[in-house]
Amino acid sequence: MVEAYHTSLIHKYQHGETAQTEDGVIVEQSVSLTVNGQVWLTFMCSPVDLEALAVGFLYNEKIISSMREVLDVRVCEHFDNVDIWLDRSVDEPRNWRRTSGCTGGYTTAVLDEIEPVPPDGLVLSPDHILGLIRSLFEAQDIYRKSGGVHSSALASTDGLIFQLEDVGRHNTLDKIAGRILIEGLQVDPKIILTTGRISSEMLQKAARFRASVLISRTSPTSMSVDLARRLGITLIGYARGHRFNVYAHPERVTL
Amino acid sequence: MVEAYHTSLIHKYQHGETAQTEDGVIVEQSVSLTVNGQVWLTFMCSPVDLEALAVGFLYNEKIISSMREVLDVRVCEHFDNVDIWLDRSVDEPRNWRRTSGCTGGYTTAVLDEIEPVPPDGLVLSPDHILGLIRSLFEAQDIYRKSGGVHSSALASTDGLIFQLEDVGRHNTLDKIAGRILIEGLQVDPKIILTTGRISSEMLQKAARFRASVLISRTSPTSMSVDLARRLGITLIGYARGHRFNVYAHPERVTL
Repeated sequence: MVEAYHTSLIHKYQHGETAQTEDGVIVEQSVSLTVNGQVWLTFMCSPVDLEALAVGFLYNEKIISSMREVLDVRVCEHFDNVDIWLDRSVDEPRNWRRTSGCTGGYTTAVLDEIEPVPPDGLVLSPDHILGLIRSLFEAQDIYRKSGGVHSSALASTDGLIFQLEDVGRHNTLDKIAGRILIEGLQVDPKIILTTGRISSEMLQKAARFRASVLISRTSPTSMSVDLARRLGITLIGYARGHRFNVYAHPERVTL
Repeated sequence: MVEAYHTSLIHKYQHGETAQTEDGVIVEQSVSLTVNGQVWLTFMCSPVDLEALAVGFLYNEKIISSMREVLDVRVCEHFDNVDIWLDRSVDEPRNWRRTSGCTGGYTTAVLDEIEPVPPDGLVLSPDHILGLIRSLFEAQDIYRKSGGVHSSALASTDGLIFQLEDVGRHNTLDKIAGRILIEGLQVDPKIILTTGRISSEMLQKAARFRASVLISRTSPTSMSVDLARRLGITLIGYARGHRFNVYAHPERVTL
């Protein structure tokens, strides 16, 4: 088993005092994704829930639309490769290749293909929203041991269903999509909570797996606000303590 | 001029009260990079300092090694493209294409090509380190207006030289490299400060432009710690208030 964090000998300075001490450091691992025997790309990620990461990534990238298309998913013994075999030959897409080295975003061509999330009658109270984000913080496991990790959760109106952590915030949403598919979960409407900032890519991934509400403890970008308004997603930022901001589709919040 | 943030009409909930209000939201813009007339990739970034972003990205990716190779850099009027012409034809590299959709990291093949930073005799006191990170916070301009943005700075032992902001933390280090090249700055040894987490990609970019010390207000990953130890870079994390941790090469800190 590969750990999501390990300990490292560091010098800790605090108020004039220095101590040499073991401290938790989040593990970042390069994990290649092999599709039908071809290496497609390398995830920089936390080496946990790798099947979900790979399946969810392919789903969020519209390579697959259900688990029926996946013949086999195997994480290699060193946790540095996920091997996926699909029920048909697929070409390595070019569009997601074009945006690396930045914040990992996509071309607008892909954005334009996403269908809006239809109205669903979901209405959340402020207490409900703040209770959900509190549950996310309480569920953080790796963060407590090492820091430096993002946490996201799938929730329904009844509360958190599962929560996942990764050194990359985008990866947490791929892992959520993958876990939904692998476990065949039917959750509708879906609420997504995350500790990470909401860039256009985060919004796009949430839209792809039909989240109605996306709640972050921190900020959205202008592009994610525009996309959320266009795609029918309730976008909530800075949810912490006794406050939050609603940036898009406030009709799902009793204000 | 494109602004780094704009205002958006939102609902703000706080302690049981809701107000509809204009609030700053950080602008995220897709900006394509055209090299010798060919579109290479799309940055998701803050639409400021785009020349520096483009030049620094090509430098950090080892496409160019000096401004002498750059015949022209032009930001288009809508701030959605940077057009760079080089003094020779270059092939669009494949290696950085392989890692998108995750945290934007690189293949280890590129990592292996980076030369270690040689010893430079630089020694910083704890007060000096904490003073520098305080200067970074005080210099933040866009952050104060909208939040949701990362800030990084180049410093020498005399203090901050310049500071840059971007919605993507990797972009801030490309912008620093670009600004150094465009302005022909000679700063040696270099100290880099950042509000962002230090992933392997951040460490790699800092190593590429020969930073001796990398200081973050937050956490490093295991891979960045390993790389910093291997490449001779002093890596400092959680620098804030009266504390910091030294993860690699503590010989540059009086402890």
